[in-house]
Amino acid sequence: MERQGADRIRLGMVGGGRDAFIGGVHRIASRIDDQFELVAGCFSSTEEKSRASGADLGLNKDRVYGDFAEMAKREARLKSGIEAVAIVTPNHMHAAVAREFLKRGIHVICDKPLTSTLPDAKKLAKTAEASDALFVLTHNYTGYPMVRQAREMVAAGEIGAVRVVQVEYPQDWLTEATEETGQKQASWRTDPARSGAGGSTGDIGTHAFNLAGFVTGLKLEALAADLQSFVSGRQLDDNAHVMLRYEGGARGMLWCSQVAPGNENALRLRVYGETGGLEWAQETPNVLRHAPFGEPVRLLTRAGAGTGAAAGRVTRIPAGHPEGYLEGFANLYSEAAAALRARQSGTKLDADVVFPGIAEGLEGVAFVDACVRSSKRNGAWVNLAL
Amino acid sequence: MERQGADRIRLGMVGGGRDAFIGGVHRIASRIDDQFELVAGCFSSTEEKSRASGADLGLNKDRVYGDFAEMAKREARLKSGIEAVAIVTPNHMHAAVAREFLKRGIHVICDKPLTSTLPDAKKLAKTAEASDALFVLTHNYTGYPMVRQAREMVAAGEIGAVRVVQVEYPQDWLTEATEETGQKQASWRTDPARSGAGGSTGDIGTHAFNLAGFVTGLKLEALAADLQSFVSGRQLDDNAHVMLRYEGGARGMLWCSQVAPGNENALRLRVYGETGGLEWAQETPNVLRHAPFGEPVRLLTRAGAGTGAAAGRVTRIPAGHPEGYLEGFANLYSEAAAALRARQSGTKLDADVVFPGIAEGLEGVAFVDACVRSSKRNGAWVNLAL
Amino acid sequence: MERQGADRIRLGMVGGGRDAFIGGVHRIASRIDDQFELVAGCFSSTEEKSRASGADLGLNKDRVYGDFAEMAKREARLKSGIEAVAIVTPNHMHAAVAREFLKRGIHVICDKPLTSTLPDAKKLAKTAEASDALFVLTHNYTGYPMVRQAREMVAAGEIGAVRVVQVEYPQDWLTEATEETGQKQASWRTDPARSGAGGSTGDIGTHAFNLAGFVTGLKLEALAADLQSFVSGRQLDDNAHVMLRYEGGARGMLWCSQVAPGNENALRLRVYGETGGLEWAQETPNVLRHAPFGEPVRLLTRAGAGTGAAAGRVTRIPAGHPEGYLEGFANLYSEAAAALRARQSGTKLDADVVFPGIAEGLEGVAFVDACVRSSKRNGAWVNLAL
Amino acid sequence: MERQGADRIRLGMVGGGRDAFIGGVHRIASRIDDQFELVAGCFSSTEEKSRASGADLGLNKDRVYGDFAEMAKREARLKSGIEAVAIVTPNHMHAAVAREFLKRGIHVICDKPLTSTLPDAKKLAKTAEASDALFVLTHNYTGYPMVRQAREMVAAGEIGAVRVVQVEYPQDWLTEATEETGQKQASWRTDPARSGAGGSTGDIGTHAFNLAGFVTGLKLEALAADLQSFVSGRQLDDNAHVMLRYEGGARGMLWCSQVAPGNENALRLRVYGETGGLEWAQETPNVLRHAPFGEPVRLLTRAGAGTGAAAGRVTRIPAGHPEGYLEGFANLYSEAAAALRARQSGTKLDADVVFPGIAEGLEGVAFVDACVRSSKRNGAWVNLAL
Repeated sequence: MERQGADRIRLGMVGGGRDAFIGGVHRIASRIDDQFELVAGCFSSTEEKSRASGADLGLNKDRVYGDFAEMAKREARLKSGIEAVAIVTPNHMHAAVAREFLKRGIHVICDKPLTSTLPDAKKLAKTAEASDALFVLTHNYTGYPMVRQAREMVAAGEIGAVRVVQVEYPQDWLTEATEETGQKQASWRTDPARSGAGGSTGDIGTHAFNLAGFVTGLKLEALAADLQSFVSGRQLDDNAHVMLRYEGGARGMLWCSQVAPGNENALRLRVYGETGGLEWAQETPNVLRHAPFGEPVRLLTRAGAGTGAAAGRVTRIPAGHPEGYLEGFANLYSEAAAALRARQSGTKLDADVVFPGIAEGLEGVAFVDACVRSSKRNGAWVNLAL
Repeated sequence: MERQGADRIRLGMVGGGRDAFIGGVHRIASRIDDQFELVAGCFSSTEEKSRASGADLGLNKDRVYGDFAEMAKREARLKSGIEAVAIVTPNHMHAAVAREFLKRGIHVICDKPLTSTLPDAKKLAKTAEASDALFVLTHNYTGYPMVRQAREMVAAGEIGAVRVVQVEYPQDWLTEATEETGQKQASWRTDPARSGAGGSTGDIGTHAFNLAGFVTGLKLEALAADLQSFVSGRQLDDNAHVMLRYEGGARGMLWCSQVAPGNENALRLRVYGETGGLEWAQETPNVLRHAPFGEPVRLLTRAGAGTGAAAGRVTRIPAGHPEGYLEGFANLYSEAAAALRARQSGTKLDADVVFPGIAEGLEGVAFVDACVRSSKRNGAWVNLAL
Repeated sequence: MERQGADRIRLGMVGGGRDAFIGGVHRIASRIDDQFELVAGCFSSTEEKSRASGADLGLNKDRVYGDFAEMAKREARLKSGIEAVAIVTPNHMHAAVAREFLKRGIHVICDKPLTSTLPDAKKLAKTAEASDALFVLTHNYTGYPMVRQAREMVAAGEIGAVRVVQVEYPQDWLTEATEETGQKQASWRTDPARSGAGGSTGDIGTHAFNLAGFVTGLKLEALAADLQSFVSGRQLDDNAHVMLRYEGGARGMLWCSQVAPGNENALRLRVYGETGGLEWAQETPNVLRHAPFGEPVRLLTRAGAGTGAAAGRVTRIPAGHPEGYLEGFANLYSEAAAALRARQSGTKLDADVVFPGIAEGLEGVAFVDACVRSSKRNGAWVNLAL
Repeated sequence: MERQGADRIRLGMVGGGRDAFIGGVHRIASRIDDQFELVAGCFSSTEEKSRASGADLGLNKDRVYGDFAEMAKREARLKSGIEAVAIVTPNHMHAAVAREFLKRGIHVICDKPLTSTLPDAKKLAKTAEASDALFVLTHNYTGYPMVRQAREMVAAGEIGAVRVVQVEYPQDWLTEATEETGQKQASWRTDPARSGAGGSTGDIGTHAFNLAGFVTGLKLEALAADLQSFVSGRQLDDNAHVMLRYEGGARGMLWCSQVAPGNENALRLRVYGETGGLEWAQETPNVLRHAPFGEPVRLLTRAGAGTGAAAGRVTRIPAGHPEGYLEGFANLYSEAAAALRARQSGTKLDADVVFPGIAEGLEGVAFVDACVRSSKRNGAWVNLAL
């Protein structure tokens, strides 16, 4: 996936200054396959902070902005302005920022969840659909090779019609009221104004929900949720139990938690069909457990025997040399690069190129919204139709 | 736990003839610590089969019966008649059999679930309470040393107040319609007349439910369940998703399944409290994962460093030499022996001796009943109060 | 493997009184399948201790002895005297005890290593060969079902000609000078007079060596060893590194240690052939990892899909319900029972019945002897031919 | 570790054209922290191939060379010529290439093993010592955060004086005679002319040897080796068994193999000291198992609780988000960048910056040489003193 011949895509970034977490991840991800070059940014809404971060990154001063709208305007006019922008702000800013770039034809690579409210998400979806620019949502776990392998196997019928989905994403970093210590990540992620109506559901539940849909290809029809805020004074859910009903009869459970000691980022998906099962865990992402019913369990490994084309095209190094989170994330950036180049050159995009976009973003916000509504109605089943 | 000085307890058995599974398990469990000696039995309702099984086991012919009521009557009159009986029939027979022995003062060691219906369970509970005889229910997973360790740690506050319980028991042996092939186990376990209203919920869900309660010491207040019968033509649930609300505010999820390929007997419990987490899995039962919040995860092993008295008193061999299912089961038999000897001698039972009894049996049947009722009411919350 | 019809075999025991470890293991192992009944014993060379232990176990007083030779003599004369004896003393006593029983036609089930010296072993081998009685050596790891599975697969050519053997048995219980605290196990196991010339090599290295030979069917031709006594003042090796050359060209390494913190009984065997690999670990004994070259690794589980007859005939309970150390040990007792009954009845022993005997015992002592000799000669290659 | 303010270091590459494996790894590693920019290269000794590879990578045509000596000469003269060169050719070329750059003051980042012969290595060491330029050898496993953690713990005495080292690096990719199929990697790695006298010992044994020394800080004094070429017709060893004696009394074993089916890149290090043990495996590199003697095993995780400064400074993302092989490799590039910038600016290098250099390279070649000599002398102990 290393860049072959073409020039690097000029990339801007909104958010991701000092103290931020995900901005740095996006930058590494954009560099791994050498497809992008970061040339501009508005790294903070405080101009001074933005400038300091820009200097850290060695950007030209005149490409560092204190205001994202100004950045969008000016970059759109520059001869060698950015071709794409990575949006890595807190959730509530995604929509406003994205719109400024989309309407100027600048491609958007946006962190999840799409927005902090469902109305925002719907509005943004319309803007995105109306724009010529591409919209990529970084549900990065879909970039892991063995997740691609699982998806390919389900699609090929290797486990038969799916019956049961078990997906979970436990963490423990909010076991205590860390948000009260001033820690920046904890602070905005537990704040309804910046995160939206979902806490753990929005931050990690959406990843779990998206992953299950990505692998199984199933649409969620309805859910019943029981949300909790275990830490005293916390406004958003820090733990959620959700029962799932998919179209076509598959059923599932989703658990996400930020108060489960001993869990770091223990995203795990298990899918059981009429003739087999698949299990994958983010913390050991190079292995996919495949259980053909009535045969011994098989351990498929990234780049190892028995893996297919879908995983192969997003893998860089030999089996047994672990690829991790950043490589999975980088795969989305490379998919975005492929899509963007195809659009720029007017060629048809290879059908193998896969990435979450505006539709998945809208579904994710609808999922959070449904969780919150169901929980308020004491776990009643809520439809996900948009 | 090996018998010390005392005579072996004279044991009878009802059920457990040729083709049965759990009868053999009970017999091994009763022998491991040499506390019991099997001397009588009614191994089948067909007299001929019962006699054949009795001969296999080397019993005296005159202690082998074709009718359990006759057995109860005669053994109660014999000078060296049985002191205890193990009931290992299909579920629908438990109540009737137990009553015959209880009312004659013969101690009962009964397989789970207690009965196939809630009214039966309530009635049996009354009989048991009225009897001088002991009633032991073999929720055998409570016999595992590291389950005892977990229980002791929760009680000692080592993980703080419990917030979240995740318990699951997936299997795959009913992925296909095995009951239609005449396989005996599949046949009665999927038959409402013999199993009761719950399929996977009764057979394994009750184990999961019981285990969670045993370790946490929490009472389940209410549940919301979504039950499925994935295999065409199957009358009972073969997969169940349940959300749990415990007294005091803890919340949980329970999943049980008999259609999850790649799972053999993957019972697994995870409990998260305010200051730590515990994880245990039946298939690797000698390890307990303890995560004190803010410290590295610790692997506690049976008989290993850092384990306490509760696990120590039910362990036989050094750390690193795995004990398994049969040893855990045997621990219940040894607990039963201790309780029975205390009762016979009129001494106070050591407070460390722990085993599930009639109360846990009643709760288990109520759990199944609540699952079925909730699912019929589209997953509405159902109270468990009896 | 539960006893079918026949009477229990009358068993005696030498050694295994209070404080002992392996005696209790033998007793449980003998009971699990109900093939034996312990009726006599000389549990200690101190008569008083022997009597106390016999009382603990509920034996008739007149079947408890203070002298093993007297026991052999009297039991041989009794009408219902013991048919077999379990020898569970420290190593240096094995030979003398065994001879007393063998020469009277009483079958012997003896713990390993066979003896504490090679001359003793050779002499005992002659006695055993001259006797009508059976000699069973409890290299108990050969009783694990998945070890049987591995052996069957190698024999069937499923991994091709064996090239490489990696076997190890690390423990940590002698990391400190525990023998100086008076702990009984540590004390005799580090004492040349009672253990023989090998420390870790004799106690656990012999198990590793035996296991490798059992699974691969290969004879060891030569070895080069580097032995250490890391704990100051310790006379016997507590760690050993050994390179192995098998007949036919396979090569291997063996590591045993009693000073490797974090290892309980981490016996592990890995065998690699021209077309596949097998891996098995004692602490998770129900799984066998099979790697057919060029295909995904398969996890074979006891009683699970894809396992064969050899494992099946020594398995008691369904897949996913772990069997452990005691069940593996019990399998040797059941094999012994089968062999003994065949000999008693004059019928041909089923070829499936497999257990280590005098030959394996002699090989084990020769292995220890060779390790010690090689190490003294600075790791020179030493031949194992007897 | 992301570049902060400074300009990128101008990097050249020798080797690493189409079909190569490790060249691409070096390029990604150099980009991850944005410290380097690839601006020149001689990607193949065939000029045409070199040019094609340079075009793939988007280099300026006049910075792509067909001859490495010419590249060194011209780049040294250019105003903005390369500051450092990555050498990723087959082993036999390392020395000649390195010399050309070193003697012109261009820093060298060289793949391992240092050279294909010991005389070459000694000569190169002299050149490197005489040069102002830096020499970095990419024993990349030393870049893994949890390897740094282990090293820091050993140095801090957390496991006491080291007694036993167990290190192994099994693979399976040469189980068959792949070199005869024309596969490029197999072909040069099994060719004495290009690889040197060691096959598996040179390719992966050196990594294992280096890792053990890096973590323990111990010097190897002597070794005894038994090398094999299992695949018919293969000239170099494809499996090696080595016993190790370290200065100060620690002992060890090293196994490397390319014919062990089911092993991908299963490098694994275990170190046992007087008061504790440490275990690390490359395929799950984010976890370090720490066993303080007499306490439960602790699982230390990258960026998790209980980890120290040494791991922290080479970690990028939160605990539970796996970093892998490329990130570990990138850490060496970032260390090289730090060292290079310090040298350029004349400032003292931070003592935390750690990377293997010429000394480790020389030791590695001496290790291979000693293995081969020992094996030829039937496993005699061979000294490693240079």
